[in-house]
Amino acid sequence: MVTEMQETSKQKPPVLVVDIGGTKIIISVLSPEGEVIARQYLLTLADQGPQSVIERMFSAIDQLLEEKDVKSAQLRAISLATAGIIDIKQGLITTSPNLPGWENIALRSIVEEKYKLPTFLLNDADAAALGEHRYGVGKGLSTLILLTLGTGIGGGIIIDGRLYLGATASSAEIGHMVIDANGPECKCGHSGCLETLASGTAVAREAISKINQGEKTTLVDRVNGNIEEISAETVYLAAIEGDPLSLEAIAKAAYYLGIGVVNLVNIFNPEMVVMGGGMANMGDLLLEPVREKVKERAFPFLAKEVRIVPAQLGNDAGIFGAAAFALDY
Amino acid sequence: MVTEMQETSKQKPPVLVVDIGGTKIIISVLSPEGEVIARQYLLTLADQGPQSVIERMFSAIDQLLEEKDVKSAQLRAISLATAGIIDIKQGLITTSPNLPGWENIALRSIVEEKYKLPTFLLNDADAAALGEHRYGVGKGLSTLILLTLGTGIGGGIIIDGRLYLGATASSAEIGHMVIDANGPECKCGHSGCLETLASGTAVAREAISKINQGEKTTLVDRVNGNIEEISAETVYLAAIEGDPLSLEAIAKAAYYLGIGVVNLVNIFNPEMVVMGGGMANMGDLLLEPVREKVKERAFPFLAKEVRIVPAQLGNDAGIFGAAAFALDY
Repeated sequence: MVTEMQETSKQKPPVLVVDIGGTKIIISVLSPEGEVIARQYLLTLADQGPQSVIERMFSAIDQLLEEKDVKSAQLRAISLATAGIIDIKQGLITTSPNLPGWENIALRSIVEEKYKLPTFLLNDADAAALGEHRYGVGKGLSTLILLTLGTGIGGGIIIDGRLYLGATASSAEIGHMVIDANGPECKCGHSGCLETLASGTAVAREAISKINQGEKTTLVDRVNGNIEEISAETVYLAAIEGDPLSLEAIAKAAYYLGIGVVNLVNIFNPEMVVMGGGMANMGDLLLEPVREKVKERAFPFLAKEVRIVPAQLGNDAGIFGAAAFALDY
Repeated sequence: MVTEMQETSKQKPPVLVVDIGGTKIIISVLSPEGEVIARQYLLTLADQGPQSVIERMFSAIDQLLEEKDVKSAQLRAISLATAGIIDIKQGLITTSPNLPGWENIALRSIVEEKYKLPTFLLNDADAAALGEHRYGVGKGLSTLILLTLGTGIGGGIIIDGRLYLGATASSAEIGHMVIDANGPECKCGHSGCLETLASGTAVAREAISKINQGEKTTLVDRVNGNIEEISAETVYLAAIEGDPLSLEAIAKAAYYLGIGVVNLVNIFNPEMVVMGGGMANMGDLLLEPVREKVKERAFPFLAKEVRIVPAQLGNDAGIFGAAAFALDY
């Protein structure tokens, strides 16, 4: 009987997960079955540099554990998801465009030393892919690709039901697939990457450029004339009320996103492509043109099984995936 | 002792393999260790249609088995590699650009019925990837991507030491990754695919276009003025003797091939990218600019382990891979 009790879900030690994004940090305690025992947000304040961010993260973790009366020794593991190019084997953030100053930060061992617990570190888009696969829209599938559509575009790949990691155990940088060799410059130094053509930043940039060319739009009033404040979200809100300029800016991003997804279908022949990140909230306005493009342009035999769907877990995909990673690996 | 003898390689039944290409068919009998017991070529004569090709293939198989005194019952399996979009589960050639008229041909069951042996069918680039992984330049690696650079561009992906097959168990169509959204039209109906920018056809087309624009070259004499006879091979032969137009045509293909490989490195983080097909014979003239581009443009952490190398098994990669497929699956 004792053995049986120990094997029920409530007896299994929970995992502490942290998702460090460019804007905010989510800290959560999750059961192995994906029940949220505790959850808290704080601002990243990334421009204060890694040391400050890590210190505030530690304070927030300690406070959350104290509030919930969880001792760190009761935890099974800690799992951290962050933006950037992660060396999973070494537990390093090698570089992270949205976390300035995070160059070769050995975050895994820093956390491991403080809490004396098995600690994991992975890329946030990889975590989101794993989260949607284990607890979200992709449950039970073998092959799934997730794109996080936000300021940038990240990617995670599930193959044979497991997170795909390559030779150096790092993430898929699908956002930096070149789809327009002669296209605009990308932050990565290359030209015509998917990210620079189809991210939220691309949508806002396109809208602002059209305004600067003198086109009329309701967007200007929405931001009280402060054109630089226009974001992909503002453009979306104007688009659903029929603003033609906003509809065009989103259609242009959807066109390029469609080409990117055609490439992924032709290369991976996946069961599902999941769209996460803030832009996924645009729903069918963004996804329907992508589905049309895939129907029109991918090889029919490769495209026939694929479903192109929005993510289900929203901002929490990363914490669920980070938990799954700690439980799996 | 008897058991031991049965387990030596010579006692294990061999596999009959057939590689049906657009130009020629290779038939071979291979031991499980990859020893070539017999091998024969015949012309495909693809324009005579599938039925004629299949009949001549059967005659050639029967003749080869008779010559080598191998009874079909002594064979372990038959494995067929062909160009085109293959439905591996159903054993169908769904469509094949280089085999006109091969639409939904159930080649696996046609062969199975005749020889009453376990029969396998896979894409030729997938077979080449498996061949190079099992018997060639990629032995022992976990992650490898092979491109066949010829009239078109095919691709095969090895992940975790196994051939990667997606949701519909078909091949990777890496040649139809769009890398220049506003680029020239491709045979597949899309624009700016890797194949239309970096294949042997692209090299020849570029050279012919420059000649038509009035540029000087030794190529014209090489083909006795029959400009339409210029092939990637002619261009290569002129290039190694220093013909500037030919060098430029190859450099242009290498530029686009480099972008394609940067994408593959950023997406897959592979240990090796293997270049097969006729154009791989161009060696470093083609591959060195690709390596430079990857060094310059892929994420350094993802690119640091990757080797970009020519295939080792040449035209026989497909038959070795087809044999490996029959032995594995």
